[in-house]
Amino acid sequence: MTDVPPTDFTLSCPVPISRYPHVTLAHGGGGRLMNQLIEQMFVTAFGNDALNDRHDGARLDPAGRRLAFSTDSYVVRPLFFPGSDIGALAVNGTVNDLAMCGARPRWLSTGFIIEEGLPMETLWRVVQSMQHAALAADVRIVTGDTKVVDKGKGDGLFINTAGVGVLETDRDIRPAAVQAGDAVILSGDVGRHGMAIMSMREGLEFESPIESDCAPLAAMVGDLLEAGVEVHCLRDLTRGGLASALNEIAGTAQLQVDIAEAAVPVDDAVRGACEILGFDPLYVANEGRLVAFVAPADADRAVAILRKHDAGVAACRIGEVKTEMPGRVTLRSQIGAARILDLLSGEQLPRIC
Amino acid sequence: MTDVPPTDFTLSCPVPISRYPHVTLAHGGGGRLMNQLIEQMFVTAFGNDALNDRHDGARLDPAGRRLAFSTDSYVVRPLFFPGSDIGALAVNGTVNDLAMCGARPRWLSTGFIIEEGLPMETLWRVVQSMQHAALAADVRIVTGDTKVVDKGKGDGLFINTAGVGVLETDRDIRPAAVQAGDAVILSGDVGRHGMAIMSMREGLEFESPIESDCAPLAAMVGDLLEAGVEVHCLRDLTRGGLASALNEIAGTAQLQVDIAEAAVPVDDAVRGACEILGFDPLYVANEGRLVAFVAPADADRAVAILRKHDAGVAACRIGEVKTEMPGRVTLRSQIGAARILDLLSGEQLPRIC
Repeated sequence: MTDVPPTDFTLSCPVPISRYPHVTLAHGGGGRLMNQLIEQMFVTAFGNDALNDRHDGARLDPAGRRLAFSTDSYVVRPLFFPGSDIGALAVNGTVNDLAMCGARPRWLSTGFIIEEGLPMETLWRVVQSMQHAALAADVRIVTGDTKVVDKGKGDGLFINTAGVGVLETDRDIRPAAVQAGDAVILSGDVGRHGMAIMSMREGLEFESPIESDCAPLAAMVGDLLEAGVEVHCLRDLTRGGLASALNEIAGTAQLQVDIAEAAVPVDDAVRGACEILGFDPLYVANEGRLVAFVAPADADRAVAILRKHDAGVAACRIGEVKTEMPGRVTLRSQIGAARILDLLSGEQLPRIC
Repeated sequence: MTDVPPTDFTLSCPVPISRYPHVTLAHGGGGRLMNQLIEQMFVTAFGNDALNDRHDGARLDPAGRRLAFSTDSYVVRPLFFPGSDIGALAVNGTVNDLAMCGARPRWLSTGFIIEEGLPMETLWRVVQSMQHAALAADVRIVTGDTKVVDKGKGDGLFINTAGVGVLETDRDIRPAAVQAGDAVILSGDVGRHGMAIMSMREGLEFESPIESDCAPLAAMVGDLLEAGVEVHCLRDLTRGGLASALNEIAGTAQLQVDIAEAAVPVDDAVRGACEILGFDPLYVANEGRLVAFVAPADADRAVAILRKHDAGVAACRIGEVKTEMPGRVTLRSQIGAARILDLLSGEQLPRIC
């Protein structure tokens, strides 16, 4: 039997209980409170090299064969929304997390937590959507689990997926590998996924509905790596949007990420919905967008490669990495004024993924 | 981009909607209805070689390095119960699924779905318990995800874990590898976990409370394999208990599993609680017990190895594999009468894991 090092179960809770005696929606919102929970509780308890990388997934190394491993649970409501649904989201979300490690996604697990009374037909639509998404992303769903909870103790359907991918590149792709001078490349317009969900929830009507950008990003990442583009870091823009992703990377790399506001594409309908509902599109969730930090000499080539993919037709260079304000993200307006783009404290969009 | 084979989204739902228009608790109960859901819906949609093995986990083979991959979600209530809690359960459950593939468990992911309002101290107790269990089972929690759902849309805390293990044996361990003549070995007494939970929920009081058997089984499996015991199949006895596990194996192997009723150890307090509450201990969930199908010549050696482990002190040989009634599990009483031990249709114990 393995010796168990003594664990001090009397350790006090590392999240300041006086301020947050209970978990709030904001603890799951992708902003400052979620970061605090992860850093102060989960990393404190589970801390190890793989977790300490602060990556979307873990990199594993079983006897020379390098793998990536990632997980996400999906609690989005409604289950079906313009452009996608919880099933495709659950596949693409984990596929994308693996791709952001520089891995080729191969295998997925799926865990269903079903609320008693869910229409069987609903489950079947979701399962078919997962299968379709798995085919499109070239991954196989190889193992799974089903739990049913009593009525009123869940919300229709929650799905967890975990994924394993193979690292076929020797490149060190992670937030800490970002370098001063790196070009920041964005794969397309931002804010679609979050606004597709919120417009539906709020009953906003547009001439054509805003559709989620939900899409697999592994093929475009594969092409970047195969072409030998010097990629230093990749991150998909989920909860908390572009601003939160850049903040996490700037914080880990201890460098400044400087963005030109006018360079960030935002669809007119998305911008309109954001104005009506009081959101900043830079903080709104996406499910088919990434930022790539690449060596400046490779920036144009990287943009050209991304643009060959359906999910990357609007790819563009939006900024660069500097050293003046370590850990900060700055946004330059068209007239040259700069402001700091901070992490949000609260929950901007609950149950968005 | 990957070509997407056309998927026919008009396929009708493969679970007979007329009989089960909605998901019921029994669809998650480990019995016949859950099997039907898995076979008719999930395997239909996701079917592939790894999934078709009907194993507790998938076996992967990235360029010659053989891995196992498994997942489970945990929705047990209450979160804390005699002998264990949801955190240790979430670690040991997935560790055990990997061990049942013959793999050495190495890495876990964890996905938390937290209901808004959960006391932060509760989360911290669970997280510490997971860390303690991970140390005891010699695995590392390397990646994770946190979602928070609104109050009334969850039940305190659900946890998903997925795990990756390394297959260090060339032995083909799976239900289809079971052979006529194999000895059936059980690692200890049955019914503790389910009765620990049910006694607590029902307010039954005993002189000493029934404690869950929740424990990692990877070390005893490692010892069996290292000693060269000819193991054909391993299965941990979770939802649906011993009877359901044996039925699944008999069904996949298309052989008869014949068990001597008197050989199956059941603790007196567990038997008493089962009688009061109307359960059959052979169908009650365990979280630290396994059955091993081994070549008859190795049976005594296998029992001796299991008995060296805390979780295996009561290991014993309980039966053998025959050919007369393919797909059936038979139970012989002390006076020699035999009855068929069938799969249960309904949900015997909801939210047990």
